[in-house]
Amino acid sequence: MPATLAPFTTDDYRARMDRAAGAAADAGLAGVLIAPGPDLAHLTGYRPPAATERLTLLVLVPGADPVLVVPKLEAPDAERAVGAPATTLLDWTDGTDPYALTARLLEPSGRFAVSDNAWALHLLGVQRALPTASYISLTGALPMLRAVKDEPELARLAAAGEAADATYGEILKVPFAGRAETEIADDLAALLRRFGHSQVDFTVVGSGPNGANPHHEAGDRTIERGDMVVLDFGGLRDGYGSDTSRTVHVGEPSPAEQHIHDVVREAQQAGFDAVRPGVACQEVDRAAREIIEEAGYGDLFIHRTGHGIGVTTHEPPYMIEGEEQPMVPGMCFSVEPGIYLPGRFGVRIEDIVTVTPDGGRRFNNTDREMAVVE
Amino acid sequence: MPATLAPFTTDDYRARMDRAAGAAADAGLAGVLIAPGPDLAHLTGYRPPAATERLTLLVLVPGADPVLVVPKLEAPDAERAVGAPATTLLDWTDGTDPYALTARLLEPSGRFAVSDNAWALHLLGVQRALPTASYISLTGALPMLRAVKDEPELARLAAAGEAADATYGEILKVPFAGRAETEIADDLAALLRRFGHSQVDFTVVGSGPNGANPHHEAGDRTIERGDMVVLDFGGLRDGYGSDTSRTVHVGEPSPAEQHIHDVVREAQQAGFDAVRPGVACQEVDRAAREIIEEAGYGDLFIHRTGHGIGVTTHEPPYMIEGEEQPMVPGMCFSVEPGIYLPGRFGVRIEDIVTVTPDGGRRFNNTDREMAVVE
Repeated sequence: MPATLAPFTTDDYRARMDRAAGAAADAGLAGVLIAPGPDLAHLTGYRPPAATERLTLLVLVPGADPVLVVPKLEAPDAERAVGAPATTLLDWTDGTDPYALTARLLEPSGRFAVSDNAWALHLLGVQRALPTASYISLTGALPMLRAVKDEPELARLAAAGEAADATYGEILKVPFAGRAETEIADDLAALLRRFGHSQVDFTVVGSGPNGANPHHEAGDRTIERGDMVVLDFGGLRDGYGSDTSRTVHVGEPSPAEQHIHDVVREAQQAGFDAVRPGVACQEVDRAAREIIEEAGYGDLFIHRTGHGIGVTTHEPPYMIEGEEQPMVPGMCFSVEPGIYLPGRFGVRIEDIVTVTPDGGRRFNNTDREMAVVE
Repeated sequence: MPATLAPFTTDDYRARMDRAAGAAADAGLAGVLIAPGPDLAHLTGYRPPAATERLTLLVLVPGADPVLVVPKLEAPDAERAVGAPATTLLDWTDGTDPYALTARLLEPSGRFAVSDNAWALHLLGVQRALPTASYISLTGALPMLRAVKDEPELARLAAAGEAADATYGEILKVPFAGRAETEIADDLAALLRRFGHSQVDFTVVGSGPNGANPHHEAGDRTIERGDMVVLDFGGLRDGYGSDTSRTVHVGEPSPAEQHIHDVVREAQQAGFDAVRPGVACQEVDRAAREIIEEAGYGDLFIHRTGHGIGVTTHEPPYMIEGEEQPMVPGMCFSVEPGIYLPGRFGVRIEDIVTVTPDGGRRFNNTDREMAVVE
């Protein structure tokens, strides 16, 4: 079991908000407007139980202290957030205009980035209160805002990875043959929770031909002896994500099956080996893809090689052709090439990897050879 | 147990979309842009598993057929929605611009209402693709869009009310004295699920002084003999909401406690009696409040008298001073006056009520006299 993690401190959140304001200034923004959801959780640790019609908004303006606008009824909850002392709480009561209150913090002719998942209701309110400003999505303006993780975040991602690895270790012991995919998926979910996950996001069990569809989750197909089975599972532990895939075989694989698995394993290693600060994200995709193309399966690797992970299980950066963002120490993402033979089976091998000054470091460390299950 | 409900038909959804387009035209709108969430569920029955960065949008333009813009990967799910055959599905693939696609459906100088909970990312995308149009929140433009329920919806709300009533009947049999509020809350949640709820939204157990805070949910306070206990619970059954409150007493109440309960019961009846088509919503609030004011507790009735209910458990119309919207047959809302004595106890009595041509009809029909529990 992963060790107990030191809690995030107010200073951790203060530093993240400082970095975000700095990145905003560098991008020519007059500020960033952060709504409840992953952005707010990352920057303040505040996770309101639900996004609602009452405005909650973190306002980051370069050179000014962060301000957290909250409904008065929810102020006691907001005050308890670890990052709250690094902000000025500005509460508003029903019947007053929270958008006018927010607009007074903003440069009227400025350009502001807004959390992608902010409610349209709230964006429209701010636009009405400050019609001379311009607005852009946060992902459009600062795609890498949450991409570089600090040490306490890396510790959580490592712990989530250990829990996912422990889950894989246990799932190898359960019977596969004769059971429905959904039963294995239930086992995976229970194991993730047993190893400390508070939330299970996905439990893919793609047996036989179902494994050839990367969007398949788990169905009522009964797993048979001789099946390849793609397992891809993850969720949140202590607020940070896990996501790992291994492909197992029920009984001994044929040489042809083993060969395709070997190609994917080699491609995954090549993707991992391409991880290095300053190198473009697309190089990870290229390195993995090259191995699969050389083996003659290029047309059967039908998705990008990876995606970022943090307070969500899918976020920037993306390891995909065209992503020229250089890798930076602290970035965390999946490396997950696959080969999918329609009507037959699929193979995918996935680790979460972080960028260190010297190259990649894996948060998933279970055996990447194809395991034989019963 | 409520009887099995006839499923919604494509015609039900077609009629709702027609009414919405008509209401948009009456309000001078060139169209309505509906995002995943309660609006989309109400109008099409389509409930994508999550709102994401990929645009899903129902476009209702008066005089044109409804169009459902969906990511190609999710088109098979969207097609299975019961309301989908009443729309034209327009799918888009990664790498193309779904906002330009959407903009081609819209009048460039038009005024459009947008679901409150649409992502800012998507509103910004539509605004960029159609900068000459103007945008307003759906609640601002058409607050009553979902307020009037059709017969199949009323049947679901009635069934949800029956399930909540069955829950209340069972909770009276459990022991209260010596148990934590959270234990009773867990019992309520389990009962709601047993009686058919798929989702539990709230289980308020406000014992003794905790009952005096209408925002209290359930805590670790141990309930004692002599306590008043406010119970307020609900959730979704077959996609439609329940919400009922009763106040019980652990052992026999004092005459003073009984008196205050009687005042609230009389106020709740007065609010119910004010329900009638053509009468302003605020009259329900006034009628209930008048009783409480006359009894000398006006300052202790510190919230509005009610809120609408449908595919969510809180939505327009609101029964509050200043709401001049006339009641219309098919509207459904709570009538829930209360009296809150700080540091002592609270009393609230709540039923869901629908407007019929002749007056109100209650979906909660358990005894409104104060029950004695053990």
